Amino acid sequence: MPRYKLTLEYAGTRYSGWQAQKNARTVQGELERALATASGGPVDTYGSGRTDAGVHAIGQVAHADFAREVPPATLVARANDALPHDINLLAAERVPARFHARHSAVARSYLYQISTRRSAFAKPYVWWVREALDLRAMQAATVPLLGLGDFRSFTDVDPEEKSTRVLVSSIVIARHGALVLVRVVGSHFLWKMVRRMVGVLAAVGRGEVRTEDVASWLTQDSGIPPSLTAPASGLFLEHVAYADAELPALAPAAISIL
Amino acid sequence: MPRYKLTLEYAGTRYSGWQAQKNARTVQGELERALATASGGPVDTYGSGRTDAGVHAIGQVAHADFAREVPPATLVARANDALPHDINLLAAERVPARFHARHSAVARSYLYQISTRRSAFAKPYVWWVREALDLRAMQAATVPLLGLGDFRSFTDVDPEEKSTRVLVSSIVIARHGALVLVRVVGSHFLWKMVRRMVGVLAAVGRGEVRTEDVASWLTQDSGIPPSLTAPASGLFLEHVAYADAELPALAPAAISIL
Repeated sequence: MPRYKLTLEYAGTRYSGWQAQKNARTVQGELERALATASGGPVDTYGSGRTDAGVHAIGQVAHADFAREVPPATLVARANDALPHDINLLAAERVPARFHARHSAVARSYLYQISTRRSAFAKPYVWWVREALDLRAMQAATVPLLGLGDFRSFTDVDPEEKSTRVLVSSIVIARHGALVLVRVVGSHFLWKMVRRMVGVLAAVGRGEVRTEDVASWLTQDSGIPPSLTAPASGLFLEHVAYADAELPALAPAAISIL
Repeated sequence: MPRYKLTLEYAGTRYSGWQAQKNARTVQGELERALATASGGPVDTYGSGRTDAGVHAIGQVAHADFAREVPPATLVARANDALPHDINLLAAERVPARFHARHSAVARSYLYQISTRRSAFAKPYVWWVREALDLRAMQAATVPLLGLGDFRSFTDVDPEEKSTRVLVSSIVIARHGALVLVRVVGSHFLWKMVRRMVGVLAAVGRGEVRTEDVASWLTQDSGIPPSLTAPASGLFLEHVAYADAELPALAPAAISIL
């Protein structure tokens, strides 16, 4: 059966996350329903990873096997006709059967949008932080988070994860108008890990947490208050890389909403 | 009683329009509730004009009289603390008692956003048009709409409007990435008038309607199919001008969502 790599964007606001569940509206559930309509038969999809309820994506990747070859442009057009407005299939690509959306991925990048101003339009796509943020302090506090670390303090217990060791290869923090953007690139991410990292970095930016606290949370299994978990609304799965050369450029840009 | 000019932005998606109504969530209703909380007593507001259900604003203006003087910055902060996330009071300004948000206005500008691509994030803020649009044809078709005209074919019967004559001073159509922006400036606008103008211009852009049809709709009380009313989602009340010098610059820019 021919295998296809599917790249999609979605606004997570209305969904109970990526992963298909009974009795809940999920992105994977909607995608599989639309692909079944587009291809004329049931389709199972495999995502690069789960995104939580309310988390968005501009470059989620999944793979699926179809009963027969379909021209990628036809597949995209038919699937989008059957998808709700807040899920958009960006591309379909024929790939070898050894390609696996999750196992073949070498890195993921997430972009987090903090907004420093009130806006009538931005709420679904940002975390509005009223306090002034010290970007230099936030940047300094990224240092202990870089490299191969044990992020057990940055996640909730997840029975599907065997290890809590993650390689974080870069964290870039940049101002972009009224936004503070945080891009995190790593081998993979644990449940809630990016939101905890951003929540902790914002607490550093507000002067409530010190770099030494961040370092100690990485060596001890303890201590990050759940209140430091940044809200899902600001988080976007930006890119899933299948080769190192595919990693995003260093300067993060705000998400293009329009 | 001191009078204040209030400038606000809102996402109209969740509201039954501007005007306060019993048993419906409206922008004016939310604003009056928040101002009562902010000022400690009931407040009546007078808007520059109504916006329909689902229509947005980045520069709606209202005035209100308060029982006592309040520093504008305090009023803005307190009102925003009491307002829902999709209504944002941008400014408050002490004005003379002769200032009236509706009667003192000399012009209004509306911006309409047509999107030519599917996007998972844009739907609440655009009208997605799949067909290619001929911008030159659309621009040519604006000519009969300019000047003082009788726009009775472009409105539904509204018992509160005495005349259907409106001075349209400019219509600018411009591409901005995947968007086609239409800015309309005029003395005032009738119910649904901007949405009908944009719907008709888009029909010209798709090749379904000719400039001559547009001209004939202005001289006859007939004929615009209701299906040519562009959806509310793409429409923004951009600016209310109280002096000619305040009119927006000619080049429209996309709404800043973030």
